[in-house]
Amino acid sequence: MARQIDLNCDMGEGFGIYRLGNDEEMMRHVTSINVACGFHAGDPHVMRRTVALAQAAGVAVGAHPGYPDRIGFGRRKLAVSPAEAMDYVIYQVGALRAFCAAAGMPLQHVKPHGEFYNMAWTDEQLAQAILDGIAALDRNLLFLALPGSLPFRLARARGIRVVGELYADLDYRADGTTVIKRVHGESDPEAIIGKVLRMVLEGRVATVDGGEIQVEGNSICLHGDNPRGPEIARRLRAALEAAGVEVLPLGAHAAAQAAGTPR
Amino acid sequence: MARQIDLNCDMGEGFGIYRLGNDEEMMRHVTSINVACGFHAGDPHVMRRTVALAQAAGVAVGAHPGYPDRIGFGRRKLAVSPAEAMDYVIYQVGALRAFCAAAGMPLQHVKPHGEFYNMAWTDEQLAQAILDGIAALDRNLLFLALPGSLPFRLARARGIRVVGELYADLDYRADGTTVIKRVHGESDPEAIIGKVLRMVLEGRVATVDGGEIQVEGNSICLHGDNPRGPEIARRLRAALEAAGVEVLPLGAHAAAQAAGTPR
Amino acid sequence: MARQIDLNCDMGEGFGIYRLGNDEEMMRHVTSINVACGFHAGDPHVMRRTVALAQAAGVAVGAHPGYPDRIGFGRRKLAVSPAEAMDYVIYQVGALRAFCAAAGMPLQHVKPHGEFYNMAWTDEQLAQAILDGIAALDRNLLFLALPGSLPFRLARARGIRVVGELYADLDYRADGTTVIKRVHGESDPEAIIGKVLRMVLEGRVATVDGGEIQVEGNSICLHGDNPRGPEIARRLRAALEAAGVEVLPLGAHAAAQAAGTPR
Amino acid sequence: MARQIDLNCDMGEGFGIYRLGNDEEMMRHVTSINVACGFHAGDPHVMRRTVALAQAAGVAVGAHPGYPDRIGFGRRKLAVSPAEAMDYVIYQVGALRAFCAAAGMPLQHVKPHGEFYNMAWTDEQLAQAILDGIAALDRNLLFLALPGSLPFRLARARGIRVVGELYADLDYRADGTTVIKRVHGESDPEAIIGKVLRMVLEGRVATVDGGEIQVEGNSICLHGDNPRGPEIARRLRAALEAAGVEVLPLGAHAAAQAAGTPR
Repeated sequence: MARQIDLNCDMGEGFGIYRLGNDEEMMRHVTSINVACGFHAGDPHVMRRTVALAQAAGVAVGAHPGYPDRIGFGRRKLAVSPAEAMDYVIYQVGALRAFCAAAGMPLQHVKPHGEFYNMAWTDEQLAQAILDGIAALDRNLLFLALPGSLPFRLARARGIRVVGELYADLDYRADGTTVIKRVHGESDPEAIIGKVLRMVLEGRVATVDGGEIQVEGNSICLHGDNPRGPEIARRLRAALEAAGVEVLPLGAHAAAQAAGTPR
Repeated sequence: MARQIDLNCDMGEGFGIYRLGNDEEMMRHVTSINVACGFHAGDPHVMRRTVALAQAAGVAVGAHPGYPDRIGFGRRKLAVSPAEAMDYVIYQVGALRAFCAAAGMPLQHVKPHGEFYNMAWTDEQLAQAILDGIAALDRNLLFLALPGSLPFRLARARGIRVVGELYADLDYRADGTTVIKRVHGESDPEAIIGKVLRMVLEGRVATVDGGEIQVEGNSICLHGDNPRGPEIARRLRAALEAAGVEVLPLGAHAAAQAAGTPR
Repeated sequence: MARQIDLNCDMGEGFGIYRLGNDEEMMRHVTSINVACGFHAGDPHVMRRTVALAQAAGVAVGAHPGYPDRIGFGRRKLAVSPAEAMDYVIYQVGALRAFCAAAGMPLQHVKPHGEFYNMAWTDEQLAQAILDGIAALDRNLLFLALPGSLPFRLARARGIRVVGELYADLDYRADGTTVIKRVHGESDPEAIIGKVLRMVLEGRVATVDGGEIQVEGNSICLHGDNPRGPEIARRLRAALEAAGVEVLPLGAHAAAQAAGTPR
Repeated sequence: MARQIDLNCDMGEGFGIYRLGNDEEMMRHVTSINVACGFHAGDPHVMRRTVALAQAAGVAVGAHPGYPDRIGFGRRKLAVSPAEAMDYVIYQVGALRAFCAAAGMPLQHVKPHGEFYNMAWTDEQLAQAILDGIAALDRNLLFLALPGSLPFRLARARGIRVVGELYADLDYRADGTTVIKRVHGESDPEAIIGKVLRMVLEGRVATVDGGEIQVEGNSICLHGDNPRGPEIARRLRAALEAAGVEVLPLGAHAAAQAAGTPR
């Protein structure tokens, strides 16, 4: 299985006077971040500060575009047309990429947020529209998605550089999908670490119905919006490294260095 | 005086269901457009459509960033910090640049909108912050400004590629500044054409106090938000061409082709 | 059948610099208006001006609350919780009621806009939540709905003063529902007038499948967002009056004057 | 001096997923709250929850309208016209009043927020426009303002029921104005309590230039956006009560019960 892994976390989710999450602390433990782009969360100042934090920490930056629904944090289903979806990707990813450019950093990846991501699991038009936006903007951008999901498969079929994610704090169903949570509650760090190590080293995870499935992925999705998030990230990283896994940004993986689509 | 001139016009000022201006008609006569970027006007779909219109017409695209004040159309004074101003430039210009990139077009220039532009005439911190945003993003971007104004002089001093504008339908004061209008009313096309020809060919314009001043610039600012806008643009362009002036986008001017700052 | 009828029209759908519809002209012909409340369209200034126009014309004012989706004009499906729906009703209706209060006018009715209205046809929780908002705010408010629809039946069951609408420019299905249009195109005024007269005088309307159904209602829904809207409204009103039907606001109907629920 | 005093605090300043301040804790100690109305902060759900919290705690509710500048939290100067200012008051106060009505509570007062308040100190047109909005809506509403300030004097001259505020954690200048802070930092509770007791019992306060001035007011303005806010509120209230001062909402003051303008 993977001997190189990325740890990603949503960041830059504050807005104006409001703070959310533990960006400073989480930044010390992850290798890639998904930065809100001003639609569901984030604003220009938060974006610049978040990119600067990442740059200082040597963390790679990705875009986390969402629905234009700030009051619902992008977590409410919204029926947008394919053209609207594509335009929302281009606008938001473009805005974040500008902050990366201003900082002299590349933009590494795109990972849609909330229902903009979830609805694409079952809506092929939406999934293709999101991929249209990414492809139109920059063919080098990586796309993060649940392995085997509709967007993942469509991206691979189109030659978009898609990367599979593994979810540290979400439960898996037998079909490989994950159970979405509104709040990422506290969990037992030991259990999470054991689960992730098994996913990374053995490619297997237990499911909510008591079974077990195969999983693969090059990035572990962590969450910073619970008090123990930083502790879990720190301990998980140490455990991965102790197990001989290299923890580094996606763009630095051997697979990504190769010309083709990373596994 | 200038034998090459650009005609610019604000466009993409619709939003959602709302339309504003005569973009399709004006697009046939101008050579550069200033596209609203979703803060004071415009939205991702309007931006994409406007870039596509420009591309089809062979018109160069610039960004028209404004204050985040949609209800006031960016025409109300808003006290933002220098960091906020810089971030508003990067975000908006970056978003528009992404639509240009998706269309395979370069972004030619930046021209701040409304009070974001006007307040910079007398606020050096604001002017520098706007220039900071442009410089951080892309040193090749042209900056459109009133010749001799504070932002114009600061840009030149910093080596930013600043281009002077001449105003077809604004009145000039003796100090070279223009009288801002909320609505660009109908005017006598003959008078406008005569005034612009004189500015372009002789470098002189009458002032509101009855005098006359020297002016220079490489781009004529037109407005499409009045019913006769397209007619005036069409006739002005014909008159300029009849007088031997080449009408073409700024980026194609001989001055811009040279490595340095265009005059 | 009804010898008193109300003519209602959506108004106040402008925003900031943007205008929409022919409010001034339509205002001369209708008896009640549905005013956008600042979520999908409208803003505080548009609301005040629209209430003032109505007051000057002797037209009754109702609230037209919508989803917080200005970019989609409230016409995109948005999954809100029942509590959110109720709160959106209270906020928007309360804001409009304040402009009515400032003008010394009563607020007559509530009619949800776009998908906030359409989704309630099939979502009982949403429909009840909208009614919860109306009931919590003021038991005297009339509620406009398609007769026989889920919100209509729920309102009647709860003792909310519900009023049935007839649609001049929408097509009816055999089940009594109407075919939603994104744009209310031009139609043949004669055909519309004939259709409405038949609905009002005979209680019958042709359906898209070639059949005919019974309909009832105390208010005719007209639209001002097409060029012939004012002409149609004027001619329809004249035709109704010529047929002996009194055209006046809902609140002035004999049925509404009675204590109970108007038919 | 005053033997009855009100303790007021800004609340309901969260938005969507974001929380701000210690509303639950502060609610136990104050007698009136100023609730954000959805422009600079707050949203319909936060407003309903905040009104419900106040109702449960027996605390009176006032409106805290601000500029439509969520990203700047209403703390940036924005040049609005008098008509815009009046409309912003009517809209926001009306929306909050609807939540009070839905809860069966009266709306007690209005206190503008941030720069909407501060700019009115020196801008008579703005101050009158705010008062126009309040007067148009409900002549019974109390208006909270700095005693002696322009809005205070104008309100009194117009017969609007204005109430003077005393500021627990702001410094006074010799002219009676206060020094605005962006962040209400931690302060020594003992010092604050001593200062407030002196203001309430002796009508005097020390100024930043080392002098002392007379002050009067019927409500103490506290802030909950610092960690010690609740503790300070609790101890201040106990100290006031120990000194024989009745702590109760403005609307319950003997002065307010009288028909005229409360002192």
